[in-house]
Amino acid sequence: MIRVSILGSGNVATHLINAFLKADAVELVQVYSRTIGAIEHLKNDVQITDTTQNLIPVDVTIIAISDDTIAEFSNQLNIKGVVAHTSGSVSITDLNDSLSKGVFYPLQTFSKDKGVDFSEIPICLEAENNETLNILKKIASAISDKVYEVNSIQREKLHLAAVFVNNFTNHLYQIGNSICDEHKIPFEILHPLIKETACKIKEISPKDAQTGPAKRKDFKTIDKHLNQLSEQEKKIYTILTNSISKTYQ
Amino acid sequence: MIRVSILGSGNVATHLINAFLKADAVELVQVYSRTIGAIEHLKNDVQITDTTQNLIPVDVTIIAISDDTIAEFSNQLNIKGVVAHTSGSVSITDLNDSLSKGVFYPLQTFSKDKGVDFSEIPICLEAENNETLNILKKIASAISDKVYEVNSIQREKLHLAAVFVNNFTNHLYQIGNSICDEHKIPFEILHPLIKETACKIKEISPKDAQTGPAKRKDFKTIDKHLNQLSEQEKKIYTILTNSISKTYQ
Repeated sequence: MIRVSILGSGNVATHLINAFLKADAVELVQVYSRTIGAIEHLKNDVQITDTTQNLIPVDVTIIAISDDTIAEFSNQLNIKGVVAHTSGSVSITDLNDSLSKGVFYPLQTFSKDKGVDFSEIPICLEAENNETLNILKKIASAISDKVYEVNSIQREKLHLAAVFVNNFTNHLYQIGNSICDEHKIPFEILHPLIKETACKIKEISPKDAQTGPAKRKDFKTIDKHLNQLSEQEKKIYTILTNSISKTYQ
Repeated sequence: MIRVSILGSGNVATHLINAFLKADAVELVQVYSRTIGAIEHLKNDVQITDTTQNLIPVDVTIIAISDDTIAEFSNQLNIKGVVAHTSGSVSITDLNDSLSKGVFYPLQTFSKDKGVDFSEIPICLEAENNETLNILKKIASAISDKVYEVNSIQREKLHLAAVFVNNFTNHLYQIGNSICDEHKIPFEILHPLIKETACKIKEISPKDAQTGPAKRKDFKTIDKHLNQLSEQEKKIYTILTNSISKTYQ
């Protein structure tokens, strides 16, 4: 059984802890948080500590803390075994050179209160050598069916792509929501459309799935829409319509 | 049993025909298409015609043809019973005044080759009087669990909101896809994130679900992202980032 510790108590740490506690091939040995109160509820399942000096030797230590504190935090660690961080945007080389470095990046949007099925979450791995990669593959496969090898440059690009398909998409949902609210239309009428739009791209590429006035170059409808929007919404509508039109020239 | 005919053979017509053929409370009597070849495969299930003069009297006639031909087409009809169109953007008043007018708008993105579960598709109804509304409600409830009463102005706003949450969202997926392709990353790594982003808003409003550098006002990450994008992508990134920032001021 591979012995694992997790350093952190945020969203990613919480979901990883739950997943590893359920996994057969992994023994979750210890959880660290600088605020012991944040992990006290775990003390019946696993050892807990708020002091890095008290870390017990394990095979893999996972650092699941906020991106901009990873490098400095890793300098405080004096541990053997593999040390991997969970960030989409931090390079593997930001970890202290004394460590056996790796990256263990689960690509998903996590909310603390919402359960996730970890088996469907892609885990993107990177390691400085094959031995480290293999042990990370083993613990990743213990909790997920979707394990990928992704280098630091690819991971940076994935993170960028995720901003478009997650952050920006959610903002478009919010605009849709506010248009509905303004006209006393239940936003739930749009839920099935939103779900189908997201599910469709598993079968058809987004390029082939595109529909709507921008693709059809239906300027009559486009003008009608622009006249109904606020200045801010108009800018977004225009730039996205132009971008779609250019794609299908 | 309510007797229904469908005029049209496009995506919406095809899915409606399939749904009504399965529904117990509705008898699909006739299907019209100006191109008889497009509906010939239906001749064992229902009467077919390519001539409006041959339309059999029914309780409800549904016009499922392209938006800009509805008004003119309705002028050719000399029929009794309710006549409803299926368009999101055409007013109920565009139907010829001699008819008992209604709207029967299923709000979903339809692909001809992809099956849909009609019971989950919201149907937005409008009618010029209660009697017409009631019969439309009956046939809508026969195929869907989600029936809404929506007036022409609300329907126009819904259609506009749908452009944001469907057309524009799909374009963001395409940008994500092209970033992946460029760096030899399988786009499928992003599928679970896309699905979760879409499903999350059933439980949390998009406003509360928002995450990412724009909301955090993390200008370091924003600058890093901008430097990696094409001119067109940069414009989209900037306008959406500004809009998110303003929302959380």
